[in-house]
Amino acid sequence: MTLPQIDHTHDAALKSWVPSADNHPEFPIQNLPFGVFSPQARAARIGVAIGDYVVDLAALRDILPEAASEALVQPNLNALFALPAQDRRALRLRLSELLSDDTLSGAVVPALYPQAEVTLHLPARIGDYTDFYVGIHHATNVGKLFRPDNPLLPNYKYVPIGYHGRASSVRPSGEPVVRPRGQRKAPDADAPVFEPSARLDYELELGIWVAQGNALGTTIPIGQASEHIAGISLLNDWSARDVQAWEYQPLGPFLAKNFHTTVSPWVVTTEALAPYRIAQPPRPEGDPAPLPYLLDVQDQAQGALSLTLSVWFSSAKMREEGRAPLRLSEGPASNMYWTLAQIVAHHASNGCNLNPGDLLGSGTISGPTPESYGSLLEITEGGKRPFTLPTGETRSFLQNGDEISITASAHAPGRASIGFGECRAVILATPA
Amino acid sequence: MTLPQIDHTHDAALKSWVPSADNHPEFPIQNLPFGVFSPQARAARIGVAIGDYVVDLAALRDILPEAASEALVQPNLNALFALPAQDRRALRLRLSELLSDDTLSGAVVPALYPQAEVTLHLPARIGDYTDFYVGIHHATNVGKLFRPDNPLLPNYKYVPIGYHGRASSVRPSGEPVVRPRGQRKAPDADAPVFEPSARLDYELELGIWVAQGNALGTTIPIGQASEHIAGISLLNDWSARDVQAWEYQPLGPFLAKNFHTTVSPWVVTTEALAPYRIAQPPRPEGDPAPLPYLLDVQDQAQGALSLTLSVWFSSAKMREEGRAPLRLSEGPASNMYWTLAQIVAHHASNGCNLNPGDLLGSGTISGPTPESYGSLLEITEGGKRPFTLPTGETRSFLQNGDEISITASAHAPGRASIGFGECRAVILATPA
Repeated sequence: MTLPQIDHTHDAALKSWVPSADNHPEFPIQNLPFGVFSPQARAARIGVAIGDYVVDLAALRDILPEAASEALVQPNLNALFALPAQDRRALRLRLSELLSDDTLSGAVVPALYPQAEVTLHLPARIGDYTDFYVGIHHATNVGKLFRPDNPLLPNYKYVPIGYHGRASSVRPSGEPVVRPRGQRKAPDADAPVFEPSARLDYELELGIWVAQGNALGTTIPIGQASEHIAGISLLNDWSARDVQAWEYQPLGPFLAKNFHTTVSPWVVTTEALAPYRIAQPPRPEGDPAPLPYLLDVQDQAQGALSLTLSVWFSSAKMREEGRAPLRLSEGPASNMYWTLAQIVAHHASNGCNLNPGDLLGSGTISGPTPESYGSLLEITEGGKRPFTLPTGETRSFLQNGDEISITASAHAPGRASIGFGECRAVILATPA
Repeated sequence: MTLPQIDHTHDAALKSWVPSADNHPEFPIQNLPFGVFSPQARAARIGVAIGDYVVDLAALRDILPEAASEALVQPNLNALFALPAQDRRALRLRLSELLSDDTLSGAVVPALYPQAEVTLHLPARIGDYTDFYVGIHHATNVGKLFRPDNPLLPNYKYVPIGYHGRASSVRPSGEPVVRPRGQRKAPDADAPVFEPSARLDYELELGIWVAQGNALGTTIPIGQASEHIAGISLLNDWSARDVQAWEYQPLGPFLAKNFHTTVSPWVVTTEALAPYRIAQPPRPEGDPAPLPYLLDVQDQAQGALSLTLSVWFSSAKMREEGRAPLRLSEGPASNMYWTLAQIVAHHASNGCNLNPGDLLGSGTISGPTPESYGSLLEITEGGKRPFTLPTGETRSFLQNGDEISITASAHAPGRASIGFGECRAVILATPA
């Protein structure tokens, strides 16, 4: 396993001359996530977030490493993701230098835009989107609701379970979600009805962006898998639970999921995450070891991430009354039964070709207790236990006007914390 | 429902000046399927098949309708598929004229290439690939093997069951299939092994190419769905049955299917298929009527297609001995429980956005009897009843060197038959 190394770009003492960057809760100079943005009405271009600003990398390409030059003038990050890992690292090193050394600020300042004045887009043209199911507490909780006698199926501890999702309906943070219609059948009804979903839910996930891919018929060995990960974003896999329950057998979720998926627009790179790597939690006594094609000593020792994930809720009425969002849950990303590298190695283990810019969802990340559950399905026990909002309203599932925002931060002793930006969207009513 | 009309381009008496075209079993002038080809080592371009030739449409764009001009110089059919249906129809009318009127042949002859001398590519850049499950006999046969007590689930007759597949691994006819490795667990084993699949299979399907799409959050009403279908190809959804059995619960097939999907490279257009439309077979007594969003009187009356589908098999030894391929099955496409229009309308019914060039598989099309089963899983009853080849070899599932080819023809009284070309691939051994 060749994991990115911790270097001086991660030093907590490193400062930036960019106003607002130092001690920024999400985008200090130690982060430097990539994204795609438009200044006002102008064309989409590649940028890097620093403090409250974004740097236009195309404008700086003459002072950035030549190996990245061609990739930096594209309208998405696919070509940048396709670069060899050492070229992506060289770009990070140079950006860190340009944004910390104030004698170099003259060349960079004209390329700085306030984030508040730009539009953020999807970071990549997503060829294929795959969603996994590696949050073991979520799998257990949901399994209990769908299959009370059989929550965790026999394959779960051997197979990083995943399925293909819809690439076309992945949208950046901020785009509203239209409540879908769908078939749903009440347990005591003779036949289904086709109506707007009455059990609309969110799912807290991480999104993995694929870096270099593999050719069809070849694999990505577990020892090389982390080099094939460009970085991660936050992901909300919106789900219509009533549609899902009726349609999902035998081929899996389809229209219950593919109406909209939200991702945070900044890609926090594998390189930026180097200091926040931790050991994969040991498997419970009695669980099988991963099969050899999924087992790597370094991945087990450093393949998990020290991230705190939070979900925030506000109703339209809460916003009207000026109330702060309600935190629905908070928990660590280490509640994943498989590492990111295992997800990637498994996906390519049959020769399936991954491409730069492909997006892989982790699956819902829940903790073992309700304070860390990653979906309303779990929090309200399938709607049986509604909760009360500060306005006196109650919720079992999402209502029109409700807004969900996912945030995250990476922590390590003696290190600056870094964040991911927002993965946010509001629910709109189904059109007539 | 606005189905394409039968016009003079379909007349059985219409002749072409192109040698080999008249009475051609697949590509007479009544067909005119679109595809993408490279003459020798030159760049990919759009063509139309006629007899044993392909016409370079980019080379003819000055004498083709201006509305299609921009689309005709692309390296794939996506922009052509995105044109309004009347523009695609105008292009067909003009091509029929150019290829039948020998006074116009002078301008066309320089753009003709023998098909034997060109390379055929995927017809479109596939944004998303979805696979359905509308072959009711297949669903019943397979259901019996996976769930003996419960072959056809309660949702089957209400929901056109589908799931997302892998776009990146769809390949044109002729590209070999590498046998995938995967996890499989014998019923009496304690744990799975990770080995080359021992139960590799094919699936006989139709592939639907999406024409104009819909915006996210909007739908495609059943009455307009046929206008969103550019045409169809033949599709082989290669399947690793041992991997599928172990991995598919609860989220559906994943690595068992996404290692390779083969499509025939010619897109037989909705316009070309107009004369071969037939009534959707009436549902068996007691089956529910489709819900209103899937029900259209004209679609029920003319939404099915009179196609005969055939699957051909040859082993390496059969080819060495100069033996003809063995026909494994033959049956009509009318063994589909849902029409193509119902598939499209359902897919977009929740606001999921379809895009031009998206590919939708029908699901395996089997008939009620073994002569028309569309997979080895059904023909050999899950491997329990191997069959014998003319060489004396036997088969339960596919061996390395085996080749599967799917062909089809459309028939109607008093009309020329038209074909689809080949959907063919050979199985290669798993690399060491």
